[in-house]
Amino acid sequence: MRTLIFSFDFISPYAYLAAEGIEALAAQHQCKMSWRPILLAALLNKNEQRGPAEIPTKRVYTFKNVCRLAHDARLPLEPPPAHPFNPLLPLRIACLRPEGELILHLFRACWKDGRAIDNVDALKPLMDEDTLKRAGTEEAKKILRDNTQQAIDEGVFGVPSITIDDEVFWGYDSFAHLSRYLEGNDPLDNGKIEKWLSLPVGASRNSS
Amino acid sequence: MRTLIFSFDFISPYAYLAAEGIEALAAQHQCKMSWRPILLAALLNKNEQRGPAEIPTKRVYTFKNVCRLAHDARLPLEPPPAHPFNPLLPLRIACLRPEGELILHLFRACWKDGRAIDNVDALKPLMDEDTLKRAGTEEAKKILRDNTQQAIDEGVFGVPSITIDDEVFWGYDSFAHLSRYLEGNDPLDNGKIEKWLSLPVGASRNSS
Repeated sequence: MRTLIFSFDFISPYAYLAAEGIEALAAQHQCKMSWRPILLAALLNKNEQRGPAEIPTKRVYTFKNVCRLAHDARLPLEPPPAHPFNPLLPLRIACLRPEGELILHLFRACWKDGRAIDNVDALKPLMDEDTLKRAGTEEAKKILRDNTQQAIDEGVFGVPSITIDDEVFWGYDSFAHLSRYLEGNDPLDNGKIEKWLSLPVGASRNSS
Repeated sequence: MRTLIFSFDFISPYAYLAAEGIEALAAQHQCKMSWRPILLAALLNKNEQRGPAEIPTKRVYTFKNVCRLAHDARLPLEPPPAHPFNPLLPLRIACLRPEGELILHLFRACWKDGRAIDNVDALKPLMDEDTLKRAGTEEAKKILRDNTQQAIDEGVFGVPSITIDDEVFWGYDSFAHLSRYLEGNDPLDNGKIEKWLSLPVGASRNSS
């Protein structure tokens, strides 16, 4: 049985939309699901890249785009009280308990009910005390660091990303291509991809 | 009659795919087309952002994604001999003659036939000598600078982007949402968008 690895960070509303659909997609293609919480900020730092919420005009567009996509998927969407927020605490909880039910519970609290999930007081009503206490341990921190590094090593550069075999599908909007891949009908011509990847760089921004 | 402004840079294969479809979409919705060549590098510089081809893992993914999208659209796709390349020369030509036919001719030379379009020798067989000569003039350079600044001022942060009224739709994958907007059925709740835009920032990357 193949495994779909779902890399996510609660900070991303696209990851919320994808999380709502990924289990059905996995079931449809007889795949197991593996939930992999990772820290988007670490990916952006690694690639010296700015996130969509860090560029003012892109932030506006992202909000509108997410609202339109939620409407298309008939999913409720309510922004949390602050954004971007620090996602470390819920991510570490998800690392300790990488279970679909708990993770969807946190995603929905944040993006469906518009609640904060970035601090202990906000999370208390959402889970048992023991899990919450263990979120501060070195064990939880290490899993998140390891997950994130593993995702980077596998070619993940954004969230949500779905890894299957050695192939990465990035974004909520990649579900159609992912489905086709899972059906064995990916149209990629590997010879052409090799050719693309070996193209020389003709100009960098400094020279233009 | 409403006008669709199509902001593009020849450097983007997504812009090629979009260029192949935008005139039909405009015609379908009784809109005029305005082709606006802009310099993607200037947008990225302005936002201190890295382009997809500048992040190694994202570069791989972008190539694959573009191949899959071209397959979906049944469009031929052949990469140019070097990428990224310096797009200033063909952009300035398109600024002097912002005509769909000429612009599609250049897009197809680059992304369908896999030819270089970044230097005078490569462009000679593709157009008349006079246009090519004028591409080096201050007039052409000024139009490109003005176009790019105008796009930035209107909220454009990437290519391709389609502007209609005051609304920006980013990316080849935004055509479905753009069509719905043109039909008067955009599902956006402006009150909710206002609320989102006024959200406080709960954490920046430095504090996480």
